[in-house]
Amino acid sequence: MSFRTIEWRDNKVVMIDQTRLPGEEVYNEYDDFRSVAEAIKGMVIRGAPAIGVAAAMGVALGARDIIADTHESFFRQLDNVCDVLARTRPTAVNLFWAIQRMKRTAEAHKDKDLNSIRQILKAEAISIEQEDLQICRAIGRNGAALIREGATVLTHCNAGGLATAGYGTALGVIRAAHEAGKKIQVFADETRPWLQGARLTAWELLKEGIPVTLIADNMAGFFMKRGEIDCVVVGADRIAANGDTANKIGTYSVAVLARENRVPFYVAAPVSTLDLSLKNGDEIPIEERHAHEVTHLQGYPVAPEGIKVRNPAFDVTPAKYIAGIITEKGVVRGDFEKGLRALVGQ
Amino acid sequence: MSFRTIEWRDNKVVMIDQTRLPGEEVYNEYDDFRSVAEAIKGMVIRGAPAIGVAAAMGVALGARDIIADTHESFFRQLDNVCDVLARTRPTAVNLFWAIQRMKRTAEAHKDKDLNSIRQILKAEAISIEQEDLQICRAIGRNGAALIREGATVLTHCNAGGLATAGYGTALGVIRAAHEAGKKIQVFADETRPWLQGARLTAWELLKEGIPVTLIADNMAGFFMKRGEIDCVVVGADRIAANGDTANKIGTYSVAVLARENRVPFYVAAPVSTLDLSLKNGDEIPIEERHAHEVTHLQGYPVAPEGIKVRNPAFDVTPAKYIAGIITEKGVVRGDFEKGLRALVGQ
Repeated sequence: MSFRTIEWRDNKVVMIDQTRLPGEEVYNEYDDFRSVAEAIKGMVIRGAPAIGVAAAMGVALGARDIIADTHESFFRQLDNVCDVLARTRPTAVNLFWAIQRMKRTAEAHKDKDLNSIRQILKAEAISIEQEDLQICRAIGRNGAALIREGATVLTHCNAGGLATAGYGTALGVIRAAHEAGKKIQVFADETRPWLQGARLTAWELLKEGIPVTLIADNMAGFFMKRGEIDCVVVGADRIAANGDTANKIGTYSVAVLARENRVPFYVAAPVSTLDLSLKNGDEIPIEERHAHEVTHLQGYPVAPEGIKVRNPAFDVTPAKYIAGIITEKGVVRGDFEKGLRALVGQ
Repeated sequence: MSFRTIEWRDNKVVMIDQTRLPGEEVYNEYDDFRSVAEAIKGMVIRGAPAIGVAAAMGVALGARDIIADTHESFFRQLDNVCDVLARTRPTAVNLFWAIQRMKRTAEAHKDKDLNSIRQILKAEAISIEQEDLQICRAIGRNGAALIREGATVLTHCNAGGLATAGYGTALGVIRAAHEAGKKIQVFADETRPWLQGARLTAWELLKEGIPVTLIADNMAGFFMKRGEIDCVVVGADRIAANGDTANKIGTYSVAVLARENRVPFYVAAPVSTLDLSLKNGDEIPIEERHAHEVTHLQGYPVAPEGIKVRNPAFDVTPAKYIAGIITEKGVVRGDFEKGLRALVGQ
């Protein structure tokens, strides 16, 4: 990969600023957990696995900076750090998963001295980042088998290297198929309002030399109906026990159009995106973001002043539209409840 | 109406510049047929009925300026004027309908002197404009009956006063329901890439005091699935004999999502939008416009340089998704072929 989404460097967290792509490739440094929380909220970093990594690194920064005489005080403050990071974005479960993992790690080493715990948390955050890259490569391998030679693959939003520690989930599948020598091409939905497709997916795939065509979101159906799309692969922000999948707003529409046109629709995500505590997608909280994202584009107004706006950032695709869920532990099809529980040994 | 889309004034054609709305309300004057053709091509004026009116006025301007000693020379040059205007945009049939009507009018009066023919053509163009306003009011009356008290109506693109001589087709139905005292509200798709929904529909409805909420195109399915949309009303650029309807890109997706969620989907259009010479929608030519519309927003780049783009401006919604076609002569349901032919006395 020719860029790094997020890394721990010189005791700081460094992230590529995704609000400024594709115009500028700028790397921001974060030296405290509150600024990491702001970066997640402001979408300097986004994508479910990537914000999991960012939150873990935020916890490590917070732990480093806690001033405490006692373990009790340290753990109380650590809880506060975790709460601040957890309140950044509500939908992607990887955020909460990563924070929980950091908490459990601290808990497991609570008998050690505070400086050791701080070092262990830093090492754990870096592990989460490095594991994520390996997980994405495994998702890629598992998914590539579903992509036929010469296929045109539609994707929505950015489930790429920029949404993960690198390589990507949906784009991991595409990268792996490309690396396997299949002559595939990608159609990328621009993904309003934040334009992750136009700004990030297009940028990533252009850099990688994978043929990519940008379309507006409302064109996907047109190309499916004309038989120009062979399959759809998207990422996920949270997957309920029955397979219902929350992902970027517009994913549901793509899934309905795919089924109507007999185009297989796949979800690619790490096991950390599963939330088997939820029976179905109705229980997944959906973030609504600021009207400004819809009324303005890079600061330029595109709608009349005073217009009322709705801006849900995610939607839920019912499992019935999903042909398969591609994880690092294999592809689940058919009875998702059974298959997803089996993946995690339940 | 608090604005005029197009009018003949002081021997010029005056149009509100739709490329500059909603930021600026500017009226441009056109004094020759070539600049009218450029205005249609550049979307200073757009919307199927409105470009029909513009083309008719363009023919009248062209006829006025023809220098000819003989009727033969006049009619040869008039053909050329018509050809230039016909080559502006391929999908909306109203353009060709209006040009044909102007040609037939000239033909019907070919025994008169040239100045009389010029005057007759000018009067005919003004008639087309004035009839369109009456037609839209009739469409509104016929359609309003389909909108229940308190309904939330989704619309795509702008089939409003700005797309017609005034009042609108889809927005005519909405206006008429509003004027009838039904407490309706509108959800407007922003309609990428040209943002007719965000820029024009939102502006028109705000001016009119009709409650309107702006959403990105990919959010329509989300709100339908949640039961927040009661019906969809859109305009049309060309309707084939079997009811298949070409309209702004994204309309097909809205129609599929509407059916999936049991939301009735209506098309509102004047009879001049029918093209009964076409058996079905496969024969409707679809304009593809410049990549710049997708990669840039008001001049600002939103995608990486060098990205490949597809930009179909229209799609075709198969008749099976359409609950009714609302015209000035009544609402056609069920067997569209029979119903549409009956409207025009075939």
